Amino acid sequence: MDEFSLIEIYFAPLAGEGAVGLKDDAAFLAPPPGHTLVVTTDAIAEGVHYLGSEPPGLIAQKLLRVNLSDLAAKGAAPWGCFLSLVLPQQADENWIAGFASGLAEDLRAFGFALFGGDTTRSTGPASFSATLLGLVPEGEARMRRGAEAGDWLCVTGTLGDAGLGLLLLQSTITLPGTAGDFLRQRYFLPSPRLGFRDALRKHATAAMDLSDGIAQDASHLALASGVALVIEEARLPLSAPARAALASYPAHARLPLHGGDDYEILCTLPERSFAALADAAIAAGTTLTAIGRVERGRGVRILDAGGNPVNLEKSGWQPF
Amino acid sequence: MDEFSLIEIYFAPLAGEGAVGLKDDAAFLAPPPGHTLVVTTDAIAEGVHYLGSEPPGLIAQKLLRVNLSDLAAKGAAPWGCFLSLVLPQQADENWIAGFASGLAEDLRAFGFALFGGDTTRSTGPASFSATLLGLVPEGEARMRRGAEAGDWLCVTGTLGDAGLGLLLLQSTITLPGTAGDFLRQRYFLPSPRLGFRDALRKHATAAMDLSDGIAQDASHLALASGVALVIEEARLPLSAPARAALASYPAHARLPLHGGDDYEILCTLPERSFAALADAAIAAGTTLTAIGRVERGRGVRILDAGGNPVNLEKSGWQPF
Repeated sequence: MDEFSLIEIYFAPLAGEGAVGLKDDAAFLAPPPGHTLVVTTDAIAEGVHYLGSEPPGLIAQKLLRVNLSDLAAKGAAPWGCFLSLVLPQQADENWIAGFASGLAEDLRAFGFALFGGDTTRSTGPASFSATLLGLVPEGEARMRRGAEAGDWLCVTGTLGDAGLGLLLLQSTITLPGTAGDFLRQRYFLPSPRLGFRDALRKHATAAMDLSDGIAQDASHLALASGVALVIEEARLPLSAPARAALASYPAHARLPLHGGDDYEILCTLPERSFAALADAAIAAGTTLTAIGRVERGRGVRILDAGGNPVNLEKSGWQPF
Repeated sequence: MDEFSLIEIYFAPLAGEGAVGLKDDAAFLAPPPGHTLVVTTDAIAEGVHYLGSEPPGLIAQKLLRVNLSDLAAKGAAPWGCFLSLVLPQQADENWIAGFASGLAEDLRAFGFALFGGDTTRSTGPASFSATLLGLVPEGEARMRRGAEAGDWLCVTGTLGDAGLGLLLLQSTITLPGTAGDFLRQRYFLPSPRLGFRDALRKHATAAMDLSDGIAQDASHLALASGVALVIEEARLPLSAPARAALASYPAHARLPLHGGDDYEILCTLPERSFAALADAAIAAGTTLTAIGRVERGRGVRILDAGGNPVNLEKSGWQPF
């Protein structure tokens, strides 16, 4: 089966308006008037961002979702995507059908379309890159800058689940039953917090996506906003399975601070807006937890339950 | 050196408006009113689209240029790009500095900016993906559809150079002196034909970029336009070095028909427009050659110098 037949059968049915059925050199797009285009690109590489043994549909969903999470953090609605697939050696037609099926499922679930792409085969490990185009009403995107001294620092969902899921998958730790399943699933399939984007744009002063560990990621928000962020470790939202895992493995107690792959939203907002945004988060199927505050100054300070500074050996994930 | 310092030092200086100095999760873009956004994505993988031993600056330029060639074929002006870099193991700071320097050179030469990206490291061969955003006046993009029976079929520049350059680099063939240098250079560094885009939009009825061999690529234009294309082999424009190589290696005589990496523009136009577009091509530093015609029907027919049909064993490059 050649490249063009594969595109025709598996990818062309997912093509959006302007993509010319994936039959041209490019897509021809007319962003709706009155909107800012929010564009993000993220790659996942085999053995780095995913294991390689996952079902191909799950790889496709992870690819989309790590990018959707960036759009969610900016308050943007997904519009379309471009994919660049450097396929693994063993990717036969079955594999591609599975990949396309995961893609189709998430395009439908999150309401956007395939605008274009490129397909080739690796001589070694695979990698997949996506560029996602999102839309926000003109000038309303949330950015990393904008946090103000006095704001509360908040986070959606729970932290550390995916990092613990990866430790389970690597057999560094073990955990019986559904708790382990939950954590592994959180590693395989991020949940982009797109559902409360209108409220996020309305109430947050700054926001970003957490992917490399909150301690490290927060330092970027602090820098962009020209403020200091204080994180109270005892307030970090943890799932019951994560609590169980950390209780069994105290050596990993600080993983919720530096573990990657959370794909939750870190945001700042005035105290008076907290209730409204927390309600919107619940309505969107997640939660919002206040974990600290914004102060004048610079950098990130992490305080333990006794109010003493926490010094991390590493603050987050680094590709180098 | 961590990822963020690398971005700050080598990539942030290349950032365009809306890219927030590459310091946010996304770029925030406002396409100028009255324009269609033309977006293309293409990846190059080590050992597939480039050798891996090239200087890193040349890899960066090839990455941009294979994508710029798509924009050129649509008559679009480059506006900005997103890059996804899955770096090779051996990429140290020196390597990245070289890559960024090639990037900077071509961003300047072709007048566009870096809008965003993602950087990680491969556990095996490297790969690089780019998504390029271009602009055309609303509704004026050239597409693969639009060719009409009676039109002339034309191509810019010369064909087969890069394919022969690759054979030289693989030591499949040898050729002394500057002829070999020219062909190798054509493989390393495509020349996107952006300079005559206004004339292309004005005169061509359909256009596409040649990357996988003209015989195969032309079949896509034929299909999209619902026409038959006739290519006269004897009219294919060949460079003097390519003629010399083909004279020495008659077994490769048909390479200009099926060799990849040409990055020239194939277009159709009414006979009366030929002189104007050919003049514009020369003004832009290339040439335009009539190589055949558009007829009613479907598919591609290739005729040899005696007017007999040419049947190729393979019509072009396939990743699978």
